[in-house]
Amino acid sequence: MAQPIKKRVSSPSELERYRAVRAQSMALVSTLSDADATAQSMPDASPAKWHLAHTSWFFEEFMLAPIFGDKIRFHDRFSFLFNSYYDAVGTRHERAKRGLLTRPSLDEVFAYRRHVDAQMESLIRDHSEALDLLDLGLAHEQQHQELLLTDILHLFAQNPLQPALKPDVNLQTANLEAAPLVWNTFDGVVTEIGHDGEAFAFDCETPLHPIIVRPFELASRAVTNGEWLSFMKAGGYESPQYWLSDGFACAQAEAWQAPLYWHKREDQWHTMTLSGPQRVNLEAPVTHISFYEADAYATWADARLPTEQEWEIAARETAPMGTFAGAGYYQPQVQTAADQNYYFGDVWEWMASPFTPYPGFTVASGAVGEYNGKFMSGQMVLRGGSCATPDDHIRATYRNFFHPEKRWQFSGLRLARDI
Amino acid sequence: MAQPIKKRVSSPSELERYRAVRAQSMALVSTLSDADATAQSMPDASPAKWHLAHTSWFFEEFMLAPIFGDKIRFHDRFSFLFNSYYDAVGTRHERAKRGLLTRPSLDEVFAYRRHVDAQMESLIRDHSEALDLLDLGLAHEQQHQELLLTDILHLFAQNPLQPALKPDVNLQTANLEAAPLVWNTFDGVVTEIGHDGEAFAFDCETPLHPIIVRPFELASRAVTNGEWLSFMKAGGYESPQYWLSDGFACAQAEAWQAPLYWHKREDQWHTMTLSGPQRVNLEAPVTHISFYEADAYATWADARLPTEQEWEIAARETAPMGTFAGAGYYQPQVQTAADQNYYFGDVWEWMASPFTPYPGFTVASGAVGEYNGKFMSGQMVLRGGSCATPDDHIRATYRNFFHPEKRWQFSGLRLARDI
Amino acid sequence: MAQPIKKRVSSPSELERYRAVRAQSMALVSTLSDADATAQSMPDASPAKWHLAHTSWFFEEFMLAPIFGDKIRFHDRFSFLFNSYYDAVGTRHERAKRGLLTRPSLDEVFAYRRHVDAQMESLIRDHSEALDLLDLGLAHEQQHQELLLTDILHLFAQNPLQPALKPDVNLQTANLEAAPLVWNTFDGVVTEIGHDGEAFAFDCETPLHPIIVRPFELASRAVTNGEWLSFMKAGGYESPQYWLSDGFACAQAEAWQAPLYWHKREDQWHTMTLSGPQRVNLEAPVTHISFYEADAYATWADARLPTEQEWEIAARETAPMGTFAGAGYYQPQVQTAADQNYYFGDVWEWMASPFTPYPGFTVASGAVGEYNGKFMSGQMVLRGGSCATPDDHIRATYRNFFHPEKRWQFSGLRLARDI
Amino acid sequence: MAQPIKKRVSSPSELERYRAVRAQSMALVSTLSDADATAQSMPDASPAKWHLAHTSWFFEEFMLAPIFGDKIRFHDRFSFLFNSYYDAVGTRHERAKRGLLTRPSLDEVFAYRRHVDAQMESLIRDHSEALDLLDLGLAHEQQHQELLLTDILHLFAQNPLQPALKPDVNLQTANLEAAPLVWNTFDGVVTEIGHDGEAFAFDCETPLHPIIVRPFELASRAVTNGEWLSFMKAGGYESPQYWLSDGFACAQAEAWQAPLYWHKREDQWHTMTLSGPQRVNLEAPVTHISFYEADAYATWADARLPTEQEWEIAARETAPMGTFAGAGYYQPQVQTAADQNYYFGDVWEWMASPFTPYPGFTVASGAVGEYNGKFMSGQMVLRGGSCATPDDHIRATYRNFFHPEKRWQFSGLRLARDI
Repeated sequence: MAQPIKKRVSSPSELERYRAVRAQSMALVSTLSDADATAQSMPDASPAKWHLAHTSWFFEEFMLAPIFGDKIRFHDRFSFLFNSYYDAVGTRHERAKRGLLTRPSLDEVFAYRRHVDAQMESLIRDHSEALDLLDLGLAHEQQHQELLLTDILHLFAQNPLQPALKPDVNLQTANLEAAPLVWNTFDGVVTEIGHDGEAFAFDCETPLHPIIVRPFELASRAVTNGEWLSFMKAGGYESPQYWLSDGFACAQAEAWQAPLYWHKREDQWHTMTLSGPQRVNLEAPVTHISFYEADAYATWADARLPTEQEWEIAARETAPMGTFAGAGYYQPQVQTAADQNYYFGDVWEWMASPFTPYPGFTVASGAVGEYNGKFMSGQMVLRGGSCATPDDHIRATYRNFFHPEKRWQFSGLRLARDI
Repeated sequence: MAQPIKKRVSSPSELERYRAVRAQSMALVSTLSDADATAQSMPDASPAKWHLAHTSWFFEEFMLAPIFGDKIRFHDRFSFLFNSYYDAVGTRHERAKRGLLTRPSLDEVFAYRRHVDAQMESLIRDHSEALDLLDLGLAHEQQHQELLLTDILHLFAQNPLQPALKPDVNLQTANLEAAPLVWNTFDGVVTEIGHDGEAFAFDCETPLHPIIVRPFELASRAVTNGEWLSFMKAGGYESPQYWLSDGFACAQAEAWQAPLYWHKREDQWHTMTLSGPQRVNLEAPVTHISFYEADAYATWADARLPTEQEWEIAARETAPMGTFAGAGYYQPQVQTAADQNYYFGDVWEWMASPFTPYPGFTVASGAVGEYNGKFMSGQMVLRGGSCATPDDHIRATYRNFFHPEKRWQFSGLRLARDI
Repeated sequence: MAQPIKKRVSSPSELERYRAVRAQSMALVSTLSDADATAQSMPDASPAKWHLAHTSWFFEEFMLAPIFGDKIRFHDRFSFLFNSYYDAVGTRHERAKRGLLTRPSLDEVFAYRRHVDAQMESLIRDHSEALDLLDLGLAHEQQHQELLLTDILHLFAQNPLQPALKPDVNLQTANLEAAPLVWNTFDGVVTEIGHDGEAFAFDCETPLHPIIVRPFELASRAVTNGEWLSFMKAGGYESPQYWLSDGFACAQAEAWQAPLYWHKREDQWHTMTLSGPQRVNLEAPVTHISFYEADAYATWADARLPTEQEWEIAARETAPMGTFAGAGYYQPQVQTAADQNYYFGDVWEWMASPFTPYPGFTVASGAVGEYNGKFMSGQMVLRGGSCATPDDHIRATYRNFFHPEKRWQFSGLRLARDI
Repeated sequence: MAQPIKKRVSSPSELERYRAVRAQSMALVSTLSDADATAQSMPDASPAKWHLAHTSWFFEEFMLAPIFGDKIRFHDRFSFLFNSYYDAVGTRHERAKRGLLTRPSLDEVFAYRRHVDAQMESLIRDHSEALDLLDLGLAHEQQHQELLLTDILHLFAQNPLQPALKPDVNLQTANLEAAPLVWNTFDGVVTEIGHDGEAFAFDCETPLHPIIVRPFELASRAVTNGEWLSFMKAGGYESPQYWLSDGFACAQAEAWQAPLYWHKREDQWHTMTLSGPQRVNLEAPVTHISFYEADAYATWADARLPTEQEWEIAARETAPMGTFAGAGYYQPQVQTAADQNYYFGDVWEWMASPFTPYPGFTVASGAVGEYNGKFMSGQMVLRGGSCATPDDHIRATYRNFFHPEKRWQFSGLRLARDI
């Protein structure tokens, strides 16, 4: 459940929060083998083992080593292996070769985590002055929890045996129907968006800044698989007039005909999920689509994608609905409530907005400051979180971002219109 | 010289304007051989012959054929060969293979132009009701005039003989010095930018719309080659901390060490120009740099790139200075005036702004409506025109755009800062 | 007409031969424009202008400069531009960028040829002691004459206008029928093959050496287009069991469905020729096939390709039949004679033999010695010459060679069988 | 130790041989984790798990299913997953994605092996009439044993931790010196080579056939690392005159500077081995070189590579010396004996001979008949076996083959000369 802009005052203790987030990572991998946790199915994805180690390295590098010194490090090569994009910290192992790191084993990575956890508990107890990066470290680990799920899904989808992370989950109530699509109207307004910086937020959510927005309408829920099928049947994937130029070139080069993971079996559309292959539920939100596809659908539907300003104005006034990772489905669920608005959970929503700095944004100094600023070109904003996002990770100001051709996240769309 | 937002009232007659633009295209290619006009040095570039034919096809397809019928067409395959990105008009010849079209010959293309010109003169005289697209057609041809120059430069730069389009031009007065860099201050403001649509403008410049801008500073002139050399000597190309993530990956993959066309000869930096190889003039604006390089330079210089909103607010208040194609240099000239601001001419300036639709933008219906909307992803805005831009083509609202890694245009940068 | 192993005694004078070969190159390009002669349609092919200049450079570099000194050179950069694979002579212009050399123009290349011709006439008259490489230079130019034709055909085939080098040629007598295929039997034998070195031959044809050959059968003529169509209709291109492993991978990757240049028009197979598009003549030899396709066809036909030893034993006993370049067709002609054997002309025949050195082969010293030895890996032998081979260029010992996936030469096949 | 051309008469019983070979595969992987056995470091290599399963599938597919029916199969998808190049048997899992098969687990693959073993024991006991393919199946498994070792070495070499398969092996006696290189002379001869088909041999070794060989000389041992270092110091890798054309292009494109796995540490050459990184032993045979490198070295040394005919004539007369897998080193050992000839073991020797069919070779009918014939293009023969070859797998007629650019096998070279 989304809780926008929490104050630290109401938070559980640092130690409790640290333990909860770390335990959640371990819970996610409980059914994975050493091999499952090692393989890398594409350069965009990382092995589960790598996610587990990299998030631990973050605490070791930025919190433990500055206080306890380098002697605290578990292994002298792990910084090389498990650094990701922090160029300032040193050279790194080649991203596309992470799947070749059969050593250290998953058990050794668990030992690394236990080592870091022991030191972190000591730090939290005895060095309250050195916890500035704790929130960032935990939010960082939560981000990787979602990536771990989407990366495992991509890996298992490449395996003809189509294995499942959670084989026995009771997935979706077959009889649910999506709520009728309602257009909610918003007046033009001068207001502020962005994060005020009081509680924790990522750097890219700041500063709070004034904007002017024209009147607009937003759909009350995400586009469903059934609606997407209409687009497909109307020849959407073959019709250049609906597509951005780069998008159609990409769709042709990659031979896109349907969302990622969709495949026909006995003339019925199925999709790969973390519970194995499932028949596509026409009432559930469509997911695993690129920005290009989302934009083409919106054009076909005589609408457009929302800007992130429009989305934030609308979303911050709503009571959070929608499914997060805590529900354990790891699939978007049917959005049934006719009198509510689903802005959070189920699927990340592609925005019309490129990921650029807010006016007045400044990059923090030091290595951690590289955090988001360097990614501010070529990527598009997504909002709202998904069925794989940790429940307490999201907020109305939260800005996720991916390149416009990426499809392996739980990404979907909501329609918008000018008035 | 830039004339922002001209009214049609003060324009020369349609016929005079048509003849002037068409003659200018012919003048540009007067020193080219059939082979020069045929070769294509990279997929981004097009042969001169193709530019000459494609701009003629535009008039044939969108103005002549609707009035006079298909019998007016010069050749039944030219629509296939010389259509560019107008998918709605039909299938097209593969872009990367344009250089293999040794037939039709340059003389045949000249004949095609004469055929179109004769019909267009008749249309302009007798069908004043059918001239809605005339301004667009002429602006389109002017765009291709600039591309023709940059594409020929790229072609000649690949030839070890380093030929010149204008071998005998008297290029630059060696003793000129660039004006000292002055920071001009702009207050925060609520204002409007964009084109009001009265005179001709491209669709992407509309609509006029309100914006909020924080206080900012802009440099009074473009960054010079000498300043760029300081960045190079400071290790700018090897220092990831200055670069966007996609940018540094691109710079490494392409082994960028200096602007495009720079090469050392006897330990002195030279650059290829349309008058052949020249020693780099340290006082002139740097050009042939990508957005990624411009952004890295700005970060290194403790500044940033301007947004297009900031640029337009500043530029529209200035008297146009700077060098356009009419001057015949085809190279950026030293910006010497200390009490003026060079917003137009010499080099296109990379903006911090992705090329996205203005609020309320709508795509025009019909094939011509594909004009700019479909390119609104993945590209960055450039402003101000260059030494290769036709003099009466530019205006303060004009939005050029290229992908952030492109370097073969006359692209440079101006610094901006928050206050 | 093939004349295996001519003695120099019976040759026309050196000057007459020089003039005849050089004039033939000029005759081939008489209908080409500057642009036609400049474009390069793929890295394997070279521009006509390059062939004309490179063959002249050979005489300048290896015959004129050693006698007259470097002052004899026409242009100081031409050695860089028109050297091909003679690494020992110096660095070279990048092969794949030959099509960007719009300068020098075709006229300048003609001037280069005239300059070389004048000097060569002087050399031939006054320096009979320095003519050791004359035969090699003329044979080299003849090789490039054939390549010039196949490269122009490839270029024109990329052009949707499908232009013709010889538009008005009277091509094929429609009523001719291919001779019935006869299997000629050859006994097992111990014999010698290869060139005895008395008259001119390429290095790779030597030395004459003993071989042991088992009994075998050879088809009396090449496989026809009609027979090839049967292979296609039998699913030959989709059936891995007929193909070499590398061959099937290549056929799949390149989506081969028919010989190069074949295309359907109104449900009829056509092929591109140097006289423009023509309907496929089912009685003529199939051409523009790779070694991989030839081998797959032979397997499908319960036969195999001949070894070059088998071919040479058979071919050297026959009176030459078949069409060479002198006939002016530049297309394989129907092989009609029932009582003769077509070993020479029409189509080069892919052998089962990799291009390897004969026992005792040694590389000649010096740059010219690089001639063939360095290509002795990864290529397959072809024998017999084609409709684009100069008439007096071929002989029974002649070994042509190309990589097994190449298709743009006039390559076909003859079947063989064990007894 | 090599035993050329064994008769079946002297063999141990079928059951004993089956058990011994199968147990050897299991012994090889005893120190591998599930992850180690799953990863694939390049498309040429396969996961250990795949080797273990594929060799079992061979018995299941070609021996068990024909007798016991499909009900004998362990898993209905394993034929899809573990078929390799037997196109005739059905479609296959994409080779380059074998490393993504984290399921089945290594334990499941062990279970698969036990299942097949139980059935095979029953077959061997009760169906002596159905054992025609037993020898082939066991030889096939032995081939994969060697590949399993070279593939694991490649995988571990990609890991910055440089793990070892056999960490504690006592590797090389540091004081051993290579024997002086002696040139052994062989007269020209008419003789026969190839396998007579009485005992087991691969199809490509047959038939026995007559050849003519000129007089030649062979070096008494393989080229050493120290000799290779001289080639490197002489600029061998940068000197095109020593290289085949395709070879130099490959060396430049891949930036080869030394054998695969060589890397400098504190200015000393080290190499990766199955016992982890080791200092290069200058007296031991060089290995992990391509055919192209071997050929360039031979040219530099004023020699050439032997033909496989020359090698076989010489090797079949010698007492086998040299190190095989049974010795447990998995590294070539110093060849010390001055009065013997090392034709077998230590390193596979690249031949000058392309892998082509012997005269009279015929492909066996049925799927197993695809065995070697389809690889007879583009590959070069290697002879003699290596330190990773099972001891009883090799013989004088044995023909191994790889593409000329491959380096991850234990491949080296011996010099030859014409007399």
